[in-house]
Amino acid sequence: MAGNTFGQIFRITTFGESHGGCVGVVIDGCPPGIEISKEEIQKELDRRKPGQSEITTQRKEEDEIHILSGVFEGKTTGTPILLLAYNKDARPQDYEELKNLYRPSHADYTYEQKYSFRDWRGSGRASARETLGRVAAGAVAKKYLKTKHNIEFLAFVQAVGNIKAENIDLNNLKSEDIESNIVRCPDQQTALKMIKLIEKIRDEGDSIGGIITGVIKNVPAGLGEPVFDKLHADLAKAMVSIPAVKGFEIGSGFSGTMMKGSEHNDPFTIDNSGKVKTLSNYSGGIQGGISNGETIYFRVAFKPVSTIRKPQQTVNRQKQIVTLKAAGRHDPCVLPRAVPIVEAMSALVIMDHLLRQKTLS
Amino acid sequence: MAGNTFGQIFRITTFGESHGGCVGVVIDGCPPGIEISKEEIQKELDRRKPGQSEITTQRKEEDEIHILSGVFEGKTTGTPILLLAYNKDARPQDYEELKNLYRPSHADYTYEQKYSFRDWRGSGRASARETLGRVAAGAVAKKYLKTKHNIEFLAFVQAVGNIKAENIDLNNLKSEDIESNIVRCPDQQTALKMIKLIEKIRDEGDSIGGIITGVIKNVPAGLGEPVFDKLHADLAKAMVSIPAVKGFEIGSGFSGTMMKGSEHNDPFTIDNSGKVKTLSNYSGGIQGGISNGETIYFRVAFKPVSTIRKPQQTVNRQKQIVTLKAAGRHDPCVLPRAVPIVEAMSALVIMDHLLRQKTLS
Amino acid sequence: MAGNTFGQIFRITTFGESHGGCVGVVIDGCPPGIEISKEEIQKELDRRKPGQSEITTQRKEEDEIHILSGVFEGKTTGTPILLLAYNKDARPQDYEELKNLYRPSHADYTYEQKYSFRDWRGSGRASARETLGRVAAGAVAKKYLKTKHNIEFLAFVQAVGNIKAENIDLNNLKSEDIESNIVRCPDQQTALKMIKLIEKIRDEGDSIGGIITGVIKNVPAGLGEPVFDKLHADLAKAMVSIPAVKGFEIGSGFSGTMMKGSEHNDPFTIDNSGKVKTLSNYSGGIQGGISNGETIYFRVAFKPVSTIRKPQQTVNRQKQIVTLKAAGRHDPCVLPRAVPIVEAMSALVIMDHLLRQKTLS
Amino acid sequence: MAGNTFGQIFRITTFGESHGGCVGVVIDGCPPGIEISKEEIQKELDRRKPGQSEITTQRKEEDEIHILSGVFEGKTTGTPILLLAYNKDARPQDYEELKNLYRPSHADYTYEQKYSFRDWRGSGRASARETLGRVAAGAVAKKYLKTKHNIEFLAFVQAVGNIKAENIDLNNLKSEDIESNIVRCPDQQTALKMIKLIEKIRDEGDSIGGIITGVIKNVPAGLGEPVFDKLHADLAKAMVSIPAVKGFEIGSGFSGTMMKGSEHNDPFTIDNSGKVKTLSNYSGGIQGGISNGETIYFRVAFKPVSTIRKPQQTVNRQKQIVTLKAAGRHDPCVLPRAVPIVEAMSALVIMDHLLRQKTLS
Repeated sequence: MAGNTFGQIFRITTFGESHGGCVGVVIDGCPPGIEISKEEIQKELDRRKPGQSEITTQRKEEDEIHILSGVFEGKTTGTPILLLAYNKDARPQDYEELKNLYRPSHADYTYEQKYSFRDWRGSGRASARETLGRVAAGAVAKKYLKTKHNIEFLAFVQAVGNIKAENIDLNNLKSEDIESNIVRCPDQQTALKMIKLIEKIRDEGDSIGGIITGVIKNVPAGLGEPVFDKLHADLAKAMVSIPAVKGFEIGSGFSGTMMKGSEHNDPFTIDNSGKVKTLSNYSGGIQGGISNGETIYFRVAFKPVSTIRKPQQTVNRQKQIVTLKAAGRHDPCVLPRAVPIVEAMSALVIMDHLLRQKTLS
Repeated sequence: MAGNTFGQIFRITTFGESHGGCVGVVIDGCPPGIEISKEEIQKELDRRKPGQSEITTQRKEEDEIHILSGVFEGKTTGTPILLLAYNKDARPQDYEELKNLYRPSHADYTYEQKYSFRDWRGSGRASARETLGRVAAGAVAKKYLKTKHNIEFLAFVQAVGNIKAENIDLNNLKSEDIESNIVRCPDQQTALKMIKLIEKIRDEGDSIGGIITGVIKNVPAGLGEPVFDKLHADLAKAMVSIPAVKGFEIGSGFSGTMMKGSEHNDPFTIDNSGKVKTLSNYSGGIQGGISNGETIYFRVAFKPVSTIRKPQQTVNRQKQIVTLKAAGRHDPCVLPRAVPIVEAMSALVIMDHLLRQKTLS
Repeated sequence: MAGNTFGQIFRITTFGESHGGCVGVVIDGCPPGIEISKEEIQKELDRRKPGQSEITTQRKEEDEIHILSGVFEGKTTGTPILLLAYNKDARPQDYEELKNLYRPSHADYTYEQKYSFRDWRGSGRASARETLGRVAAGAVAKKYLKTKHNIEFLAFVQAVGNIKAENIDLNNLKSEDIESNIVRCPDQQTALKMIKLIEKIRDEGDSIGGIITGVIKNVPAGLGEPVFDKLHADLAKAMVSIPAVKGFEIGSGFSGTMMKGSEHNDPFTIDNSGKVKTLSNYSGGIQGGISNGETIYFRVAFKPVSTIRKPQQTVNRQKQIVTLKAAGRHDPCVLPRAVPIVEAMSALVIMDHLLRQKTLS
Repeated sequence: MAGNTFGQIFRITTFGESHGGCVGVVIDGCPPGIEISKEEIQKELDRRKPGQSEITTQRKEEDEIHILSGVFEGKTTGTPILLLAYNKDARPQDYEELKNLYRPSHADYTYEQKYSFRDWRGSGRASARETLGRVAAGAVAKKYLKTKHNIEFLAFVQAVGNIKAENIDLNNLKSEDIESNIVRCPDQQTALKMIKLIEKIRDEGDSIGGIITGVIKNVPAGLGEPVFDKLHADLAKAMVSIPAVKGFEIGSGFSGTMMKGSEHNDPFTIDNSGKVKTLSNYSGGIQGGISNGETIYFRVAFKPVSTIRKPQQTVNRQKQIVTLKAAGRHDPCVLPRAVPIVEAMSALVIMDHLLRQKTLS
């Protein structure tokens, strides 16, 4: 049983490999009547596309989205929505030399172990190009959630290597601040340092990891399904399913393990409008797996991408030890381009749980 | 759509609340012919049961497991397996005073927001007592995986508050070392410090968090389903769905974000037997979402449990601010009892993916 | 991947075999706040229980239902509902002689082919006793649908062998008329003939088939999910999954295949209250897979049950041809007891689709 | 929760509407290494395409299939397979007059009740054009099942209106005999009568129903999942989900309801090769929901299609009674074109269950 579908009600299936005919997504279970345009989807895709700045890969992928079903007169019809981008600028010959060996920490070896053979062109299905379908589907979810429930999704680069943006005020976070620099860190001073580090790493022919913080605002209380489909359990899965992700933490996360209950518990109070609120938010907006109405925030750890120009030891299919010196055009740091992916996966989780919650009445 | 089912092929559904008739699990999709006895399941349950030592809650829950279907003449039949433990020692009166207020960082408020009303006896379904069904099902999975594939699951307490066991050699980790002390930390010196800390915290009427490391040995290469059901994405969900968990990291995890690709990549080599191996294991045994045959290891962050004896501010259903001073019998630190839960959830994930892999041939 | 779960949102998993510890069901996804009592469920079970009249098997199964989770203070909580009946009056020794042979047209041979071995006591999981869980879950669905939407489920025996009740007016069908005789046919004259036939068949040591008609009233327009989960496709699956069923037809069914479109099409009209209605109802209340607000009706074909007292040729596990003369206590005609099962399966389908429809807004 | 996905392991999701950009299917869970060409898929599609003979609609749909992902160097890779045909020859203006009214027994009214609005061009998603994706996916399943297991799928038109082919010998049925005439009935004499009847009906501006028999050979014993996903329950759902289907029966079906158990039971015997066989096959190759190794056969009832040229009463969106006289190019009898659809749906069911069975070992 394969795993290319995500969500229970708002259900997406992505397809496509980096050098096949296209990449994209089918959305099933999208409510009818949502106004959505090609431009709105394209806007999100442009935030993840390669070649968008000098710190991303210089591959050119046009990534023009096509809406091929499920939308009529500008509105979703309730039937499956097919969104895809045809592959262009494919240079399979770039990969000829990789055909016969396993790049370290890449999916070459494991795909071959799993499926017996593999599409070796540009990582095939294991290419991060697959995330295009996620971002396209996320754009539809975002539109619904913003329009109907004023729910907002923000993500930003909080760390690149050991350069960290401290003290970001999540309550006053603005999309413009994040998008105002090419690394997508709202602290402009830190952003400059990050960019400098990425440029250095790029010039070394190496790569570097980092951390993205995700923030979701205005989620109504009550979303999340005990006991396995807790809201943060589904967020964890969503995030860890993104290529290169090695960790996830919500609210206080790993640092909360060192706290006492008396410090960590979020005391309830009543705000001026008579609403139940918490005084602190170590819970990260989720208690018992269910949203409590506070801001949801979490952190996602990305490893340094495995494709680097530096020479590395590896083995080939003939089980010989060889040295790999990769050519090709790769990202020294995926985090700037991963920001819209984190947002998209967040939107898919919230969308699904919001629709699931409707079945309880 | 509710969320009490876990797994696609080896599919478990847990049921029961802390003060209802019982807690337990139905397993559907278990292969026939597995020899399994009540005693083997009971042994795992006894590792998670309350009252097992002076650092756990002093509640007595007998937790005697009953196999009510799906096993015939000591072997699984391929039909649904019903495992349950009847609830005893229920003292709903202990909870009468909680009926009307929301305990901080507990699921009281969110359950009520979700379902409009709630079973207020001992947290109802949100009680960690629910995990009994997970451990029971995990025992069946473990038995199959050990017998047929020699796959082993180990977990241990790596940190309690700021007391950490450093330099544990995962390759030489032994179950006996973990089980030889009541806190379940294989480093006996550190274990003593952890126990002392937990006792202090308990006496203060407070609670403390910590970290459990999970280790899975002998997983064959090829398990995990791109692109959403990556093996570590399903492990992440499994772990984060455990009560009190706030974070998950695999392999290098958050610390890997500070590494360069040239450091983090695991070089392939050929071992003496001619097998493909990696020289390092920052990947944590999973590459591209698929197991590579190396040891899988991950860390799980537990917050301090929210139920404490210390007085706390909260609000009641009449939206008044009140002070809560909880009575009852609770764990100052859940980690020792959570070790078998982490193992069980690991086993459920591996079992499911191992059966999924069979459908590719 | 096993198949003991039915439904997408209102999701039931049945468990248990005829001579294990119990039979029953877990319901996940039941909306909270439904008032349901043990007595309401028991009432439905009593309609399917063995020994209820002289034309059913004389086995005594008490079938007392236990609500073990998911209901608090008389109302569903939104968490999994465990309903079960313990097995009593089990006489495995009755089946000793069957242990080693395959009863014709029974599941003995196929279970053994599938699972390699089988629980030979009273058909094990293949026993119609499994339907107890379906009827129990159906009682919960019926209660919700009646209370919230005034939807009603009726089923009756329309034919036993070649004795048929013609001209039953579905619009004036009453539960009392169906329940007023032991064969559950609302035409009292025909009912007498059916009873006489069943008695004759019973005395011959044989069995006989028949047809049940199902009727669902007051289903709102709009239920059913194109293109695979059409409302009648799910009804078809639900019905054909009942033991001994060999056919299903909705509305005009097989007889409609001989009609012209100009005869078969149901002309739309406007009724006195301004509502869109159809003048005829060959569609059986479903068009394009979606309910149109008219009465839904369908017919279900049951074969004669395979267990008979008459001697029959068969083979044993040693691949020898042998003669079987079954002892035991069996139904000469399952239809009277299958009526509540047909109703229950109908209710499960409508319940699930009604909750699914809520996710479209 | 929408219903455009079929299958649990071999999982297809169809998309597209008659006048959108395309129609097609994504297959997830297809085993890797299956050799499949565009031509093999096209061949199946050509059997269902409009305009193939004078008794089908004269619409021209080229239906050229494109393989856009999941196949590399002529073999499936184990990743999602995207198959689609772009829509051409779309004449939305043909449907302008239908925009505002509900065609009798069509899905216009029910789609609008379900989704609030609808794509009125050529039935939108309710168009039988949707079945193209099913046939394309079925071609892949057929290829695997034939190559690896020698399983064969045949279907033929057994009745058109009251013209029936009696005494077809299912054991000697040949594909060539079926395909040798345009109505797809292997009895050539009856085929001529059927064609004559369809021509007459067509000239009257009317439509006619009929029955298709499906036959599946060489299915190994052991497929089918108790208790809900019985093999014939899934076949029932698969068939009833095809547009215009009103009934399904397996083996003896409705006629079996009039038999006694002693007549209907299929006695077991041992054949010359020492294999367990049955002397008769009233069971239709399935016992207890699991295949027994005998030939599977079933019958599917199709109503007369609802679109006819004859004037009919209906209502419009303003709730006025009006007369509809449909133009457009429609099939007087869908059965000849439905034959490959019945085969495809059969193949999808068997494929899925065959892969499910692998998870039991």
